[in-house]
Amino acid sequence: MRNILIIGAGRSATSLIRYLLDKSETEDLFITIGDLSIQSAQKHIADHPNARGILLDVFNDPQRREAVQQNDLVISMLPARFHIEVAKDCLEFGKHMVTASYVSDKMQLLDQKVKSKGLVFMNEIGLDPGIDHMSAMQIIDRIRDKGGKMLLFESFTGGLVAPESDDNLWNYKFTWNPRNVVVAGQGGAAEFIQEGTYKYIPYHRLFRRTEFLEVEGHGRFEAYANRNSLKYRKVYGLEDVLTLYRGTIRRIGFSKAWNMFVQLGMTDDSYTIPDSENMSYRDFVNLFLPYSPTDSVELKLRHNLKIDQDDLMWGKLLDLDIFNTEKKIGIKDATPAQGLQKILEDKWTLQPSDKDMIVMYHKFGYELNGKKYQIDSNMVIKGEDQTHTAMAKTVGLPVAIAALKILNEEITNPGVQVPITKEVYEPILKELEDHGVVFNESEVPYLGYNPHNVVG
Amino acid sequence: MRNILIIGAGRSATSLIRYLLDKSETEDLFITIGDLSIQSAQKHIADHPNARGILLDVFNDPQRREAVQQNDLVISMLPARFHIEVAKDCLEFGKHMVTASYVSDKMQLLDQKVKSKGLVFMNEIGLDPGIDHMSAMQIIDRIRDKGGKMLLFESFTGGLVAPESDDNLWNYKFTWNPRNVVVAGQGGAAEFIQEGTYKYIPYHRLFRRTEFLEVEGHGRFEAYANRNSLKYRKVYGLEDVLTLYRGTIRRIGFSKAWNMFVQLGMTDDSYTIPDSENMSYRDFVNLFLPYSPTDSVELKLRHNLKIDQDDLMWGKLLDLDIFNTEKKIGIKDATPAQGLQKILEDKWTLQPSDKDMIVMYHKFGYELNGKKYQIDSNMVIKGEDQTHTAMAKTVGLPVAIAALKILNEEITNPGVQVPITKEVYEPILKELEDHGVVFNESEVPYLGYNPHNVVG
Repeated sequence: MRNILIIGAGRSATSLIRYLLDKSETEDLFITIGDLSIQSAQKHIADHPNARGILLDVFNDPQRREAVQQNDLVISMLPARFHIEVAKDCLEFGKHMVTASYVSDKMQLLDQKVKSKGLVFMNEIGLDPGIDHMSAMQIIDRIRDKGGKMLLFESFTGGLVAPESDDNLWNYKFTWNPRNVVVAGQGGAAEFIQEGTYKYIPYHRLFRRTEFLEVEGHGRFEAYANRNSLKYRKVYGLEDVLTLYRGTIRRIGFSKAWNMFVQLGMTDDSYTIPDSENMSYRDFVNLFLPYSPTDSVELKLRHNLKIDQDDLMWGKLLDLDIFNTEKKIGIKDATPAQGLQKILEDKWTLQPSDKDMIVMYHKFGYELNGKKYQIDSNMVIKGEDQTHTAMAKTVGLPVAIAALKILNEEITNPGVQVPITKEVYEPILKELEDHGVVFNESEVPYLGYNPHNVVG
Repeated sequence: MRNILIIGAGRSATSLIRYLLDKSETEDLFITIGDLSIQSAQKHIADHPNARGILLDVFNDPQRREAVQQNDLVISMLPARFHIEVAKDCLEFGKHMVTASYVSDKMQLLDQKVKSKGLVFMNEIGLDPGIDHMSAMQIIDRIRDKGGKMLLFESFTGGLVAPESDDNLWNYKFTWNPRNVVVAGQGGAAEFIQEGTYKYIPYHRLFRRTEFLEVEGHGRFEAYANRNSLKYRKVYGLEDVLTLYRGTIRRIGFSKAWNMFVQLGMTDDSYTIPDSENMSYRDFVNLFLPYSPTDSVELKLRHNLKIDQDDLMWGKLLDLDIFNTEKKIGIKDATPAQGLQKILEDKWTLQPSDKDMIVMYHKFGYELNGKKYQIDSNMVIKGEDQTHTAMAKTVGLPVAIAALKILNEEITNPGVQVPITKEVYEPILKELEDHGVVFNESEVPYLGYNPHNVVG
């Protein structure tokens, strides 16, 4: 019997747990699910004989250490900042570890010790980061293996509502942590590189400098730039690449409409509003508009954002009921971002019958024997239902598959890892295909951003 | 002989030192000027018998402590963050202290101990903060003394170039620390209150929500909102005031033009640009515009900011030579704000023959016996020359006057103080008038923002 401890039994853990329970007979696994709520821990298990739920407070040192000691591998599905204590225990007691989070500086510092104990600490093995790393490196390695030189890498991911559940003017619902959506892009300019030239987009312009993407069979999407494209140069060995851009996918028109909230200042998370608890949606909106004794909040907003009578933007705002005088923010000392999130959750929460959808899109430009080529690769996956969402599957399944392959010594390279080596991505991507994570690849003409080598 | 130590002999200290040297005979003063540069310390003195310059490194504990011990009062003209070590020495050795800086939390914590030793630590006694506190509290106290209730307080200050030296399209030159001008307004939304309603303006809209101000004999100005108006409720005892707004004064049109840099992201101070040292002004501007193999930086910028052929904005940009291909940023790892500052300094540096000008404007709305009234009060002062600028005079003279009045026991209230009590502001404002700091007061009809009590 091999023992796996999963810490954190939230929405992201459903498909992860189902996968491991399904394999528990043939693979001889016993799964312990630890969570702050014993109900949460147990609800995933039903009466499965090879699993149990336990109460686990990650800040309770003896409790956490005992749980780690009793297992062979630990999966932490907690927020990234909580991993480090678990990681130290895993190191001390000689246990492997798997997370879907970015490698923190503290985690990276453990690398030498993890290596010297022959342990695998696999991180960034969810969707983004995770499937993006694996599917990108698979093609980048293939291009390099045949002697190609990478010129361009662009990569886009989005968590969206599936078309059959898309019933609002924004063509969007929250399929993951709403807070991350509201504050997305904040904290500095988006940095990337195009044709060898650095480019910076400040937050307040981010949602007006989108690119379009066409996915066969799924129509047109748009993408806005992520903050941190440049760090992928080192991770993927793309130090000399001329173009490197990562972005977030939305349905067409979302970003331009979202920009209204950015312009008003409603996405700000840096200060709190007095008496926000009892404030109506209308009063909340009025905080961001000039004072007038006579003019309506509606007209002030239209004027402020230059919204014409016949502009669909206006319909999108009305769709959210933001001028309602009765509905209250209901959060004490809310930041603008928290107030906005409350308003959006009324309309953008996935309903029980709704399905979500993940879209990922990569572009690889390269040069081989003096000619330029481009490969486009995309993946679209829909959720089964509200439990096994596309998000839960794409985050949880790579984690589960990696965990089992580490236990089975198919993944053995020790240290603090991310899934960018063949040993890791080949078998995991192959198995993910059985779960509907299938990339469609096509050769397209290389265009880049300067197809004719014009000097501007 | 009373001994005064002045730490920091920068541009802001000229008028302060002249005042004290002029009084040194009659008032029996000996002035020691300490600076990291002995040349800087000595150049202010010439061969004055009642003064000396010394080398003083505020981080050299024995040196600093010895200097403090030898004096009766210490004036710190250093940046605010360096005051606290001096303040602790002053407390230990029983010396009074004067600064023109905002009271830091660390400084405030010394209050009880300063009081128990009977010492005066006077802060915020420059221009803004300083003259603004005193001139505002003088009128607020007068309104209250006759039974009035404050309804509205608005206060605006600006450091500008004098009209006779105003020779660029921006009607602006740097008359103080350029860096503060470039990053002004950053770090959070501007918060204020109008007719009892909180209002927030995000940084990227700040320079488009200006107000106009008319100063008799000086024409029209504009003002953008300061970040921190609300903290003045407590300082001035205006907790119930309906309208509280503080702003920064510029010549008409400056803010709308400055907004171009904000929109492009050029005022960002949060990240650094690779190879900024060898970057031309043109390449620097291009960082903030989309890549194109063919289109010019000029046209991309025009399109990005929607600048028409005949728009004066364009002239303002050309005036700064921002598209120059030869001129280099010349700063290693510059932030966008540092790069922009370099470009602006080429054109906005005060020339030896230039004069600066300070404008301050207060509005006081109040109710008395059921009627509403308003008092407007403004002050305009020009510099004498490049040494005794309006800025140096308005920052330095109140410091100097306060220092002497503390030594002469005319200002005696002990503790960590700001100049908001009659004991302090009456004599200082009176003496400042002899130096040209004269407020013009007028009764105007009370308008507020809702003169007819309309409910919107």
